[in-house]
Amino acid sequence: MARIVMKFGGTSMAGTERIRRVARIVQRQQAAGHEVAVVVSAMAGETDRLVNFCREANPLYDPAEYDVVVASGEQVTSGLLAMHLQALGCKARSWLGWQLPVQTDDAHAKARIEGIDSEALMASMAAGEIAVIPGFQGLSPEGRVTTLGRGGSDTSAVAVAAAVKADRCDIYTDVDGVYTTDPRIVAKARKLKNVTYEEMLELASVGSKVLQTRSVSLAMKEGVRVQVLSSFIDDDAPAADTIPGTMIVSDEELARIQEGLDMERQLITGIAADKNEAKVTLTRIADRPGAVAAIFGPLAAANINVDMIIQNIAKDKGETDVTFTVPLADLARTQALLEERKDTIGYYRMLANSKVAKISVVGVGMRSHAGVAATMFRALADRGINIQAITTSEIKVSVLIDEDETELAVRVLHTAYELDGE
Amino acid sequence: MARIVMKFGGTSMAGTERIRRVARIVQRQQAAGHEVAVVVSAMAGETDRLVNFCREANPLYDPAEYDVVVASGEQVTSGLLAMHLQALGCKARSWLGWQLPVQTDDAHAKARIEGIDSEALMASMAAGEIAVIPGFQGLSPEGRVTTLGRGGSDTSAVAVAAAVKADRCDIYTDVDGVYTTDPRIVAKARKLKNVTYEEMLELASVGSKVLQTRSVSLAMKEGVRVQVLSSFIDDDAPAADTIPGTMIVSDEELARIQEGLDMERQLITGIAADKNEAKVTLTRIADRPGAVAAIFGPLAAANINVDMIIQNIAKDKGETDVTFTVPLADLARTQALLEERKDTIGYYRMLANSKVAKISVVGVGMRSHAGVAATMFRALADRGINIQAITTSEIKVSVLIDEDETELAVRVLHTAYELDGE
Repeated sequence: MARIVMKFGGTSMAGTERIRRVARIVQRQQAAGHEVAVVVSAMAGETDRLVNFCREANPLYDPAEYDVVVASGEQVTSGLLAMHLQALGCKARSWLGWQLPVQTDDAHAKARIEGIDSEALMASMAAGEIAVIPGFQGLSPEGRVTTLGRGGSDTSAVAVAAAVKADRCDIYTDVDGVYTTDPRIVAKARKLKNVTYEEMLELASVGSKVLQTRSVSLAMKEGVRVQVLSSFIDDDAPAADTIPGTMIVSDEELARIQEGLDMERQLITGIAADKNEAKVTLTRIADRPGAVAAIFGPLAAANINVDMIIQNIAKDKGETDVTFTVPLADLARTQALLEERKDTIGYYRMLANSKVAKISVVGVGMRSHAGVAATMFRALADRGINIQAITTSEIKVSVLIDEDETELAVRVLHTAYELDGE
Repeated sequence: MARIVMKFGGTSMAGTERIRRVARIVQRQQAAGHEVAVVVSAMAGETDRLVNFCREANPLYDPAEYDVVVASGEQVTSGLLAMHLQALGCKARSWLGWQLPVQTDDAHAKARIEGIDSEALMASMAAGEIAVIPGFQGLSPEGRVTTLGRGGSDTSAVAVAAAVKADRCDIYTDVDGVYTTDPRIVAKARKLKNVTYEEMLELASVGSKVLQTRSVSLAMKEGVRVQVLSSFIDDDAPAADTIPGTMIVSDEELARIQEGLDMERQLITGIAADKNEAKVTLTRIADRPGAVAAIFGPLAAANINVDMIIQNIAKDKGETDVTFTVPLADLARTQALLEERKDTIGYYRMLANSKVAKISVVGVGMRSHAGVAATMFRALADRGINIQAITTSEIKVSVLIDEDETELAVRVLHTAYELDGE
């Protein structure tokens, strides 16, 4: 017997028939002898409808009242799923964010969970009652309704799993797991059985949109085992335990799993592509101490996240070019900030290019292996793909290339690292 | 400066444009220097939509989960109205049922308000903040969401008015006040400036559907002055103080008002018609002690409300006929109950007639005057309308007649008591 938290998104909750299917999937988990809590999103489209009412009411709406309005969508689906479960003969009840409560900070519309009081919840689950919890919502220190920001229900589910010390948090989505790369780009992409939190974070933050990044960080911090699997399985299929999704686990657990299977650890887990970066180059900056700080200090102060940085070697005259990337959404602000400081920084020209893509190869295995970067550079060079910038971390090598070459680069690297399935 | 509670129904809250109009009406009250709280219903149609989801989930739905689902409609409109008020430059915030809280009993889907904690609410209003409160919802002793039953928002408004010791509770409806009778039946019906709680109760419970009966009882118990007025006034019109609605007040206040105006107290305030009764006759019952108890005991135990009772005088043989009325909705249950007990009661035949109407003349003035009933019987007899039963209270005389003669009887009485306007 295990304790399991299940999470269903808006597409799975869209209308009576779909909620009934979800109820049957949940019932099967309970019938298998598990203690079950379910975290639900609002019906697909409902949050958009409510957000529109808010915008119509006041374009500069009060986020505290926005939270009152939009949190209602999950309240509705939690009550309805409890009723559907009761109709199947299960004991079930809803627990709203303020009832548990799910304590958050007071950053309305983008609140962070600070803790969940799980005592009553665990007692109810232990008594065989299925707990149905609206995702996305919480309670501020002032006792007002908060929401976690769009897509926050993944984070709610992981937080609930941590609070009840669940054996597993199953996130049902419209994909059936995490792949070595986007299957729409590479037909031979393979579904991963296991992936570590850190790999998932790199894959998520560079464009593999299966889970909210925040939920993965929280799972890593709290040691929650998260499984990604499809809610579009046949509801007569066996319980989720036997459906192969992707399990997101710690580095140590992955090592144990692979030892148990007598498997050699794979160097590279996946390839991600991200077109949401822009490249900025400042030319002919004086090559002296403090010059670079004059560029990046103001950007940091403005909360603009600089990713890759290259400083060309000054050949003569004590001058250098500096190139870096920022999120595409922050490009205009970056340009304005640097334009203002042109004299302080002392550059000649500012060049910007939003037609770039960041391609990353990710894998915890690369920590103990040399040559990953070399393989990457060779494979791209062989196809004539020019590398504009490089950045590395312990489990990732990323390169910046021309946006038009994104799909080609992903395919080339997927093959080069022997990730192709049949 | 006064403290005012305003209540708006679902038609007034149906969509962005209508909520904006409500916000302007509310803003004008505040601009007139008043402290304001607003109680709102869900958007018209929304509660039905949510109730349908509940029925689809489980025909025998759990009322506690039903409350979680349907209470969301008022949550949405309270947040939206707060935003609209803020857009007009007012300070405003929503207070959900569980936040005040509005304490109720635990009779889910038909809860009764037990008290409202008004301390924080009054402090906020005193600071110039408009309080927006979802009607219909409350909090059970177990800390779960409750609702008051359909139309409960009128009751919420009166309860809030009592809790904050409001000078007035303005109920905005789709009619512009209480009339001497239904204007659809009698074109010469006049709008009443004032009516007492007791008169309003009699008018409401016998078919003049302006306010929920429960809200009037509560207003009487708590001494809340209630004003009924139209929400379809031009929103550039002056503040509600100067719009002639109908004020529902105590007997004493009405007497003072009429003295001040040097007005003689009107005998009769209004005429109501109710087609939702049915007549049952049991023939040839033994005229002995206990016989009547054998009929009405079981009906009382089954919560069936018997209204008019006539026992015909036994001419001979020690036998009598007993006629009484019950709500039309309870007729089938009544017949079944009495059929079962035919031998115990010892009657010969049971006759039922659902084609009857109860016509009532209502007025606190009749307490001190004889002849009201006499006028009624003469006026009806003059037009050949047969009276099947009679019942009276201190402020009411009711007769049961053939349903087909309802409109004629109402018109005849409206003229006989000199209620006709121009």
